[in-house]
Amino acid sequence: MPQPLERVKTTPIIEWNAGHDRTGEDAVTVEEPLEIRISGVSVRVTMRTPGDDFELAAGFLFTERIVGRRDDIADIGYGKGPDGHPSPNVVDITLRAGKHVDLVRLQRHFYAASSCGVCGKASIYAVRVGGIVRPRADLHVGPALLARLPAELREAQAIFDRTGGLHATGLFDPWGEAACVREDVGRHNAMDKVIGWALREGLVPLRDSALCVSGRLSFELVQKAAVAGAPILVGVGAPSSLAIELAKDRGMTLAGFARNGSVNVYSGTERVRD
Amino acid sequence: MPQPLERVKTTPIIEWNAGHDRTGEDAVTVEEPLEIRISGVSVRVTMRTPGDDFELAAGFLFTERIVGRRDDIADIGYGKGPDGHPSPNVVDITLRAGKHVDLVRLQRHFYAASSCGVCGKASIYAVRVGGIVRPRADLHVGPALLARLPAELREAQAIFDRTGGLHATGLFDPWGEAACVREDVGRHNAMDKVIGWALREGLVPLRDSALCVSGRLSFELVQKAAVAGAPILVGVGAPSSLAIELAKDRGMTLAGFARNGSVNVYSGTERVRD
Repeated sequence: MPQPLERVKTTPIIEWNAGHDRTGEDAVTVEEPLEIRISGVSVRVTMRTPGDDFELAAGFLFTERIVGRRDDIADIGYGKGPDGHPSPNVVDITLRAGKHVDLVRLQRHFYAASSCGVCGKASIYAVRVGGIVRPRADLHVGPALLARLPAELREAQAIFDRTGGLHATGLFDPWGEAACVREDVGRHNAMDKVIGWALREGLVPLRDSALCVSGRLSFELVQKAAVAGAPILVGVGAPSSLAIELAKDRGMTLAGFARNGSVNVYSGTERVRD
Repeated sequence: MPQPLERVKTTPIIEWNAGHDRTGEDAVTVEEPLEIRISGVSVRVTMRTPGDDFELAAGFLFTERIVGRRDDIADIGYGKGPDGHPSPNVVDITLRAGKHVDLVRLQRHFYAASSCGVCGKASIYAVRVGGIVRPRADLHVGPALLARLPAELREAQAIFDRTGGLHATGLFDPWGEAACVREDVGRHNAMDKVIGWALREGLVPLRDSALCVSGRLSFELVQKAAVAGAPILVGVGAPSSLAIELAKDRGMTLAGFARNGSVNVYSGTERVRD
């Protein structure tokens, strides 16, 4: 095992405040590249906050639908750097014997292109054709609980308190209890870390859970939650048009602007009731 | 020209607030994929808010250092969809005759890998070797102006007021006057739109300007600003460790947490004085 990387560093700053300046130190979130390999072959470099690297790599491969279930991953460890020793910035995954890797999916920046053209509809279709499970319909949460989740998430954030600078995703049970909270400089990474954790724990698909994110709700975040089978996704910020359309298509409950006892529900309203 | 896409849509919602629910409508930001082509060859699909598509495509190619100057782009227009007509989600760029395209750069998710391994230092080195200009040292701004820029940016945001849901980047002169403000669901897209605008106006490198972003300061945002030669980058949120290290390496002024008359300066403090 390589020496783990720090998640927080201190840095000298000058702080100006109402006409006065002060020299001091500030705690900042660490950002470092992580290379994800499959059997030694590089498939992705992502900028991430160190920690939970195996979960991030497993979650990324799962939400990109390169692997479909826990057993597809035979082994996971740190890969070698150029000095021949395991590097803290390289995760190498060995797939089970006989598992076919869809290299086209790895070209993820092309995922929205299809024979019917590049458009929101094609993007939604690309998620639908993957044969992912539909989220269960008979799960209910109260609106007050939904509105409270971002505050619970915020309270569980360990690094944010020190740096004020990072995204988080949390996995909650229907009573609002956090099962897993992960932080990262990248919003997609925080989601992948949580889903990777759930995959490795054997909890995917996420039948009885709500996912909560600290920021806005983009198409890609809904896509990841949909692949994991999550019935409910809530965020502290606004959803995009395509995020809402995808949630509707997948039968998911999508809620935004959850703060101060208030929440807007954009799709799957049947799951939200007192 | 294809019919332009909407930037804002309305969607039905149920709003819960302090125990009461209300059925209503909410304005949401549109998110749609944009395919960027070079001479008909797809090089990238990004999820973006429609509008300023040519600027986005030009800015992306410039900040990824596929093109180096305005004249490298001979023509820019909407590309054909599968029906043979120009699609509002496809931008096709024709480079000047003889312009070589570095296809390796297009594999952008590998940019951090190098012979010295995947790490923050290698990521910074990868920016340095591009031969980008160093930002001018003799530009100064007052700390109060720096602290005020995010509020000015916020005021100039047209779509945010309606949807509460989008990132912005602004280009400001040393007196705090906005030259260009662009919005997008993606933080990198907003930056690329502004830099693409400046490139097409012949204003790159950005010698006399400060860039301001609505969110946090990641490595990639500093990288884009560095490629554009911006001396000053300020954000309303926190910088990451690698963002600070890159700004120091490039001799840029990086400031964060700019709000309520206060601002933290992490590098290039010599440019900030009353």
